[in-house]
Amino acid sequence: ITSSGLTAAAVEKGRFRHFMQKEIFEQPTVVAQTLGSYLRRVEQQVALPQMDFALADVRRITIVACGTSFYAGMVAKYWFEQFARVPVDLDVASEFRYRNPVLEPGGLALFISQSGETADTLAALRHSKAHGQKIAVVVNVPTSSMAREADLLLSTHAGPEIGVASTKAFTCQLAVLAAVAAHLAVVKGKMTREEEQDAVRHLLEAPAALNAALAHDADIAAMAPLIAPARDVLYLGRGPDYPLALEGALKLKEISYIHAEGYASGEMKHGPIALIDEAVPVIVLAPSGPLFEKTVSNMQEVRARGGKVVLISDAAGIAEAGEGCLATIEMPTVHPLIAPLVYAVPVQLLAYHVAVAKGTDVDQPRNLAKSVTVE
Amino acid sequence: ITSSGLTAAAVEKGRFRHFMQKEIFEQPTVVAQTLGSYLRRVEQQVALPQMDFALADVRRITIVACGTSFYAGMVAKYWFEQFARVPVDLDVASEFRYRNPVLEPGGLALFISQSGETADTLAALRHSKAHGQKIAVVVNVPTSSMAREADLLLSTHAGPEIGVASTKAFTCQLAVLAAVAAHLAVVKGKMTREEEQDAVRHLLEAPAALNAALAHDADIAAMAPLIAPARDVLYLGRGPDYPLALEGALKLKEISYIHAEGYASGEMKHGPIALIDEAVPVIVLAPSGPLFEKTVSNMQEVRARGGKVVLISDAAGIAEAGEGCLATIEMPTVHPLIAPLVYAVPVQLLAYHVAVAKGTDVDQPRNLAKSVTVE
Repeated sequence: ITSSGLTAAAVEKGRFRHFMQKEIFEQPTVVAQTLGSYLRRVEQQVALPQMDFALADVRRITIVACGTSFYAGMVAKYWFEQFARVPVDLDVASEFRYRNPVLEPGGLALFISQSGETADTLAALRHSKAHGQKIAVVVNVPTSSMAREADLLLSTHAGPEIGVASTKAFTCQLAVLAAVAAHLAVVKGKMTREEEQDAVRHLLEAPAALNAALAHDADIAAMAPLIAPARDVLYLGRGPDYPLALEGALKLKEISYIHAEGYASGEMKHGPIALIDEAVPVIVLAPSGPLFEKTVSNMQEVRARGGKVVLISDAAGIAEAGEGCLATIEMPTVHPLIAPLVYAVPVQLLAYHVAVAKGTDVDQPRNLAKSVTVE
Repeated sequence: ITSSGLTAAAVEKGRFRHFMQKEIFEQPTVVAQTLGSYLRRVEQQVALPQMDFALADVRRITIVACGTSFYAGMVAKYWFEQFARVPVDLDVASEFRYRNPVLEPGGLALFISQSGETADTLAALRHSKAHGQKIAVVVNVPTSSMAREADLLLSTHAGPEIGVASTKAFTCQLAVLAAVAAHLAVVKGKMTREEEQDAVRHLLEAPAALNAALAHDADIAAMAPLIAPARDVLYLGRGPDYPLALEGALKLKEISYIHAEGYASGEMKHGPIALIDEAVPVIVLAPSGPLFEKTVSNMQEVRARGGKVVLISDAAGIAEAGEGCLATIEMPTVHPLIAPLVYAVPVQLLAYHVAVAKGTDVDQPRNLAKSVTVE
């Protein structure tokens, strides 16, 4: 018998109506908890667990995951390449397994899974190990199969996640991956000690920023009835906001059964814009910054065709482009490094409140299992 | 003044109702034409145009494109890695441009575009050139900007494509990319002379196989009314059929305005299966072969939840798993190398006939331009 060691508080809903809602609101705490074991607060330095290989020698990283964890991997690819200049291959586990991927010697393969038991991901891990890759895993269950088979165990400390739609596990995965990206950049000589301190400072701001994002819960609940009648919704983002758009669409699909789809903003013109009419709301994720103008221009193409836009941005972004939107959701102004964590909150809350408005079973959506342990 | 040199026949609809329909039916001819300039029929050998760099030295290939051309690139990634064991990075042009990608010395960057003028792709080409990459392009307009700026010009000979939704340009792109994959495998020492002859023989069978696929036009027209009332449709595939699923969904989106989405079959369980009910038909692309059983098991999960399945497979696949489907579309039994070309036909015809049944403007769908020359 394995004792779970959980207190009742960890698995009860308390003042919340649903586990998913509770888990969304736990994010500032569990992200802080997770960061706590990867960041040295005094030295403002990233510290990873011991490993028996030199991270500085890694020339290529292969990231493999499924579902929401795959979208965390997409953000990580962006970070690893931007900060550490280490190229990343990324694949969904069910595809990776069957395409006989090219795995070069000296490669690191990184697997992401809340449960650490996802069947396709576990099989991909074993395949990579058999082909000479070092194995790193980001898992929320330190006793899981993936944790046991890893060379480098990167635990998230999200606590038990009961809602089938993953929320806090995702932001904790992002927190770990951001820390790893910064550390990799340091050992690769692409980030100075000062830049590392700066990155650590920004990461430590994430819990407060998540709280600021959660403060918009009532606004999002108030606008959810505008989205609930839609049969189809598009989510758009660029760069690290593109995986967030995919994740937002997945959340809405999973719990509200609305057919939501995420797209890279720049791909809209190559087909999906034909879908746009007044019945298909478009959710745009776009913090102000260098990519903002481009996304606003895509947003205007949508509006010119009668599409209704919900803009999720910061104060500067909303001041610049909020006019004429169906609704806007204001996020705190944050450093780009923590933006993906912060922008996860409004897409989670939007999916949650739309599902509540529709009366679906939020914690146990139809057809889905929490952990997919069959292929 | 540049004379287009086109005869009237090339730009008239003739016996066809729409340009798109005409272009779908031209595929056996234009694919044969395209293959003709890359394959030596007598020697059964691939012959690429002259280039000023050694293909054997290429250690990594970066493929960048948009829309339908991007899906051709996804299939090419699969082929280049399988046959030549050369790892491939793949990105949509609008994302590639802004993520400051890691481009290693000695890399080849390959751009795919029907017009050769797609703004994001052209900008990505110039970025890659400025960062020391050799440039290859697969374009249908040999006088285009991309053609002029390439180190290696790989022309498709599809003739002018008038329909906004790309069809024959796509299969011609695949034909060129398959030939390049085989040649790369030969120069990398991963394919023997005999295997090359075998691959060339199979490629030369593609036009006849495309004709056999087109022979199912009437069956597909007859079943289109079953799909036309749907508001949402999912397309599933594995391996090289995954990009075909994405392309099928894009075609349906573009011309029928049905919200279709393509998914890797194995990802269904990680969220999208929540969408499934009797109102959401699922189109499954699955030639018989090693991946067939896995996809059939995903198909059965869909059916167990009340989903209606249209199975596109060959005789063996339909005999094994066709029972209980809403409809089946039988494709000729072909070698896996040419399956992506052949399976493009039924998804094009299905989108075409559904759009005709819905009465939309097939050749000029709303909101779309033929060539996206703005960002």
